[in-house]
Amino acid sequence: MNAGLTIKHYIEENAARIEAELLESLPGIWGIPETLRESMMYSLMAGGKRLRPMLVLATVEALRGSTEAAMPVACAIEMIHTYSLIHDDLPAMDNDDYRRGKLTNHKVYGEAMAILAGDALLTHAFYSIVQAYRAYEVPAERIVDIIEDLSRLAGASGMVGGQAADMQGEQGITKLEELEYIHLHKTSDLVVFSLKAGGHLAGATAKQQQALEKFGYKIGLAFQIQDDILDVIGDESVLGKPVKSDEKQQKVTYPYFLGIEASKDKVRELTEQGKRAIIDAHFPYSDRLLELADFLTQRDR
Amino acid sequence: MNAGLTIKHYIEENAARIEAELLESLPGIWGIPETLRESMMYSLMAGGKRLRPMLVLATVEALRGSTEAAMPVACAIEMIHTYSLIHDDLPAMDNDDYRRGKLTNHKVYGEAMAILAGDALLTHAFYSIVQAYRAYEVPAERIVDIIEDLSRLAGASGMVGGQAADMQGEQGITKLEELEYIHLHKTSDLVVFSLKAGGHLAGATAKQQQALEKFGYKIGLAFQIQDDILDVIGDESVLGKPVKSDEKQQKVTYPYFLGIEASKDKVRELTEQGKRAIIDAHFPYSDRLLELADFLTQRDR
Repeated sequence: MNAGLTIKHYIEENAARIEAELLESLPGIWGIPETLRESMMYSLMAGGKRLRPMLVLATVEALRGSTEAAMPVACAIEMIHTYSLIHDDLPAMDNDDYRRGKLTNHKVYGEAMAILAGDALLTHAFYSIVQAYRAYEVPAERIVDIIEDLSRLAGASGMVGGQAADMQGEQGITKLEELEYIHLHKTSDLVVFSLKAGGHLAGATAKQQQALEKFGYKIGLAFQIQDDILDVIGDESVLGKPVKSDEKQQKVTYPYFLGIEASKDKVRELTEQGKRAIIDAHFPYSDRLLELADFLTQRDR
Repeated sequence: MNAGLTIKHYIEENAARIEAELLESLPGIWGIPETLRESMMYSLMAGGKRLRPMLVLATVEALRGSTEAAMPVACAIEMIHTYSLIHDDLPAMDNDDYRRGKLTNHKVYGEAMAILAGDALLTHAFYSIVQAYRAYEVPAERIVDIIEDLSRLAGASGMVGGQAADMQGEQGITKLEELEYIHLHKTSDLVVFSLKAGGHLAGATAKQQQALEKFGYKIGLAFQIQDDILDVIGDESVLGKPVKSDEKQQKVTYPYFLGIEASKDKVRELTEQGKRAIIDAHFPYSDRLLELADFLTQRDR
């Protein structure tokens, strides 16, 4: 548990642990064509905060479960997140050449390989989840619950649905509710999945699962609004990407609808509501989950 | 079982049954963006022989299991097959405007939506498999076995790997072994999955699973060689697509390496070897599986 670590060190330590697992996540014995393997690993190891897998681990800790047995599921959610970034960056979608200061997947490996690397990472996420059963004897019923949640929250009515709505709405979002639909599904659904998966792994009660879901939707939205705020006011050198890029792309954001100050209030309010749900559900050790909520929504990058 | 039906009627009847299930496979209560739903259903319902789901059902029949409980898994394999066709047709891949006489997905819905519809169908396949557990009480351990097989056989070392090798090899296949690698993974792996999934659902013994796997690899390859042969000698009006299209696209095929007569011999030989494996493993009722093997490899379209 390392309860003595500051949240910053806790995050660094867990990110390193997750990256070590991700490096081993494609079995070397498999006959994967070399360029496909390279393309998958290029994006999987391209940095990123590893927040979603960290939420899996923090939830398991909150229930005093085994974070070792949770690792294959933590890796799976990062594969899903990575595949979605590869496909979102494609010329037919957001047409981005850079992500986190590195060339995007299709700029290095070409469009065809980028599409296939995304497909392969999405498929392999399910294989990874099954390994929590094979290698760590997580009961099959819990694995099936996790897979059902993932296939719903990452699919047509979840993350992919959010991306589809974003694509279609780019020219014409006129209401805050439309923006909330996109954020809810593009961002919050995977955050909620990470928390619920941790709950399934460590045997959360129904009441605790409800609290995790509420917490996830609140901090997922707060995280996204904070992203929008940083895009307007953030320091470009700290952020690592051009500020006001949303404005230049004419993307509609929270500050556009509410203004900066009301957006900041909304972040604080959502974070408090989320934390309150966790506190009220009496987890054995929820400190890290609560600290992560503050960290995610108060970050400057 | 309808043991009295001819194989032709058996196939028609099961195809109709599978299509009725596919029509209901995206729950209406879900908040799926309308265009995304349309795009997914457009390709899912665009015809096709439904051979892979039919192999699931025939295997379950061979073991006298419940074909009703197998339906969600049968639908899942058709979702996987459909997503792979949508992505393969994209401009960055094979750049096809028509499939089965209809416009390809991206020609109707645009590239972005076609990519997302493929992603969503791939993801939803796993949801569908879980429904065999939720709705028909297939044991969770069997569901996990099925999901592990699918994520391996449809992923980086399976179908996606075959497609990646095909993309990379288009200019330079010089050996029959390279062509076999592509066929093995692009086609046979999903055939093998269909059979093994049927085996998992109906409680096949380890020996029966081995026989199903051998049968699958033999008839999968035979099916693909027959495809190559039909492309050279088939009747365009029967086939529904231009013959000699492989030659025009300078695709390397079996007849290219072996000639037509030796390719036909190879189809017969593989089919007999596949059927022998099933006969030797003593299934309670293997008639349909054996008939399907003949039907698939003797077809003229």
